[in-house]
Amino acid sequence: MCIGEVANVSAEITYTSRHSVEVQVNVMSENILTGAKKVTNKATLWYVPLSLKNVNKVVEVPPIQYARKEQEDEGKKRYEEQKLDRLETKQRNGDVILPVINPDRQTKEPHTVGYSQSSLIHLVGPSDCTLLGFVHGGVTMKLMDEVAGIVAARHCKTNIVTASVDAINFHEKIKKGCVITVSGRMTFTSNKSMEIEVFVDADPFVDEPRERYRAVSAFFTYVSLSKEGKPLPVPQLLTETEDEKRRFEEGKGRYLQTKAKRQAQMQQSAQQ
Amino acid sequence: MCIGEVANVSAEITYTSRHSVEVQVNVMSENILTGAKKVTNKATLWYVPLSLKNVNKVVEVPPIQYARKEQEDEGKKRYEEQKLDRLETKQRNGDVILPVINPDRQTKEPHTVGYSQSSLIHLVGPSDCTLLGFVHGGVTMKLMDEVAGIVAARHCKTNIVTASVDAINFHEKIKKGCVITVSGRMTFTSNKSMEIEVFVDADPFVDEPRERYRAVSAFFTYVSLSKEGKPLPVPQLLTETEDEKRRFEEGKGRYLQTKAKRQAQMQQSAQQ
Amino acid sequence: MCIGEVANVSAEITYTSRHSVEVQVNVMSENILTGAKKVTNKATLWYVPLSLKNVNKVVEVPPIQYARKEQEDEGKKRYEEQKLDRLETKQRNGDVILPVINPDRQTKEPHTVGYSQSSLIHLVGPSDCTLLGFVHGGVTMKLMDEVAGIVAARHCKTNIVTASVDAINFHEKIKKGCVITVSGRMTFTSNKSMEIEVFVDADPFVDEPRERYRAVSAFFTYVSLSKEGKPLPVPQLLTETEDEKRRFEEGKGRYLQTKAKRQAQMQQSAQQ
Repeated sequence: MCIGEVANVSAEITYTSRHSVEVQVNVMSENILTGAKKVTNKATLWYVPLSLKNVNKVVEVPPIQYARKEQEDEGKKRYEEQKLDRLETKQRNGDVILPVINPDRQTKEPHTVGYSQSSLIHLVGPSDCTLLGFVHGGVTMKLMDEVAGIVAARHCKTNIVTASVDAINFHEKIKKGCVITVSGRMTFTSNKSMEIEVFVDADPFVDEPRERYRAVSAFFTYVSLSKEGKPLPVPQLLTETEDEKRRFEEGKGRYLQTKAKRQAQMQQSAQQ
Repeated sequence: MCIGEVANVSAEITYTSRHSVEVQVNVMSENILTGAKKVTNKATLWYVPLSLKNVNKVVEVPPIQYARKEQEDEGKKRYEEQKLDRLETKQRNGDVILPVINPDRQTKEPHTVGYSQSSLIHLVGPSDCTLLGFVHGGVTMKLMDEVAGIVAARHCKTNIVTASVDAINFHEKIKKGCVITVSGRMTFTSNKSMEIEVFVDADPFVDEPRERYRAVSAFFTYVSLSKEGKPLPVPQLLTETEDEKRRFEEGKGRYLQTKAKRQAQMQQSAQQ
Repeated sequence: MCIGEVANVSAEITYTSRHSVEVQVNVMSENILTGAKKVTNKATLWYVPLSLKNVNKVVEVPPIQYARKEQEDEGKKRYEEQKLDRLETKQRNGDVILPVINPDRQTKEPHTVGYSQSSLIHLVGPSDCTLLGFVHGGVTMKLMDEVAGIVAARHCKTNIVTASVDAINFHEKIKKGCVITVSGRMTFTSNKSMEIEVFVDADPFVDEPRERYRAVSAFFTYVSLSKEGKPLPVPQLLTETEDEKRRFEEGKGRYLQTKAKRQAQMQQSAQQ
């Protein structure tokens, strides 16, 4: 999307389970002067409703009506999938220790994981929060994209652009007054794309007895672009430790799975 | 005003009634490097003071001293006029039903009302509000100008610029946590200007028993500019329904009235 | 620093007294594409910790461990110096009356103090404040730099850039809801630099019985740059009143002191 274009953002609820809501969001950019429009972003978001009286209590979701029975079935399938994904992420987070603060990049070889890893810290202020005093998801997502973009640019040394974001998992709420650390490291490269894992860790407010905790995690996929906007080959990631090699293989798995899913969808569209 | 210029904003109270204050605001732009200055905006704002203890109670305004008796008389005349204007607006709002969400612009002919009408939604957050938890007038005005500008640009497909804003009427306060819908539609075109009616409707916070209500309304006048900044002819608005035709005639009335008033002022200045 | 560069900001505690903390901040800019890095800013900040329960109570600072005894001694020296500086500033502020609102610049000669002096007002909103409802120091510093920059540009009519900021003294906290007046006037010019004194005065919230008070003061040093980024000679400041002449001499004293200090540091570095 370019400066001066109008963003048309539309969203609709596409599935409800007992305690969660699936929302599909479409962003279309419109060049007012020429009238040209194109879809620039698509996203699926899952929300869990909390009681206004007690923010730790999940409340029930009023069910929506489906136009066709198949829509409900497909929604249910997506629901089961994301549930599984979230579970996997939780396990993966269990044994990850934050390694990316103060990387001594000077001593690292280009294209290693350590060379491009990056992090920032941010004090959660009033304007980052909802009325209930918790950080807006959108604020966190913007910071995550910023860190992931720096990781990608440091690796490629070219213009880069976000291609897709794998499920962003909000494990825990972040309260006003926390200091959050947003850190990213490259996990996998294909010929034309990079996968970057991003974490958000929260240090609770000074007078709270709680320890630092993992609040959000996600995988971002970036592509490298030439000045003319053409995709460029991505330098291969150099893995050094056992953990880096394991994460590379896991990333490859996700890459191949996404590729297969996309091909299946294209075949389906072609058949319809 | 251009990037890098200094805006000199000055304001003074020019009239007080028992429960309201008239403030005249002047904006002058200054090019620091050349020292050139010019008036870029003028506005008259009417405020009503509310009690700090009870935001629903209007308090009394301490009267100002006038340098000359005529100033008080002219102020009183302006006061009566704006009171009448507000009354008219209220009646006009009574029978208006918000039509501009999700316009199906694809099926509309260019230059019809439906083709250019636009709307946006915004969740009122803490940083939009005053200390008392109500939306800053300036935040609303900025969003209204944004929507009106999109309407004007969609109609003309050129650069456009705000020429003037007819009384923005704040019918009701908007509370933190509301979702507001800002919508605009073109009502009238002269040879070189377009009038756009803009509404702000507020959906109260989730746990309040109240219905959606009309909070603000205004008419914005835009002109179309060439790349060199010269005024361009405006494509004539195509009215389809009876309501659109009626609103066009009303807009023509306002246009002729403003034109007559401006000519009277110019004659007055010439005589002085 | 340029658009698109990554700012690496690092900070560490370098000294603690019983009630204050010295923090050294370094800003390094990184051009991602070329990998080039350079230090763009350095600053020393002194903080005083306040009780979370009673914001008017200063609490004790847990002491830090020093790697070498000399570090503690040097820190202590810096501590004594800044304490003295703050004392001097307080005295200087005692007899200063704010002169810079509504300057009638039209009638002033170029290069006089009155010609370039500038001020702005700002209503302190929720997003300017910390969780405790006091203005973030960074918000104030940004506004002060804005005003000082306008003063410098009005004097030189060229591009200008902040060279250094002499101790910004936060005399008193500023509460949410205050209206602050940020005003600046030129005090001294050398061949290639200008010193601008900036004040922040706070008008307490409407229902508080307190008078306007001086909250922050500082000296900013600017240099004038050609379009190619080369330093330009600065037009000499014309002083008219006795106070202006006295402030010019005081500014000259600070200028010579800073110059001597810098030369001493350079000799020290050369010896090491």
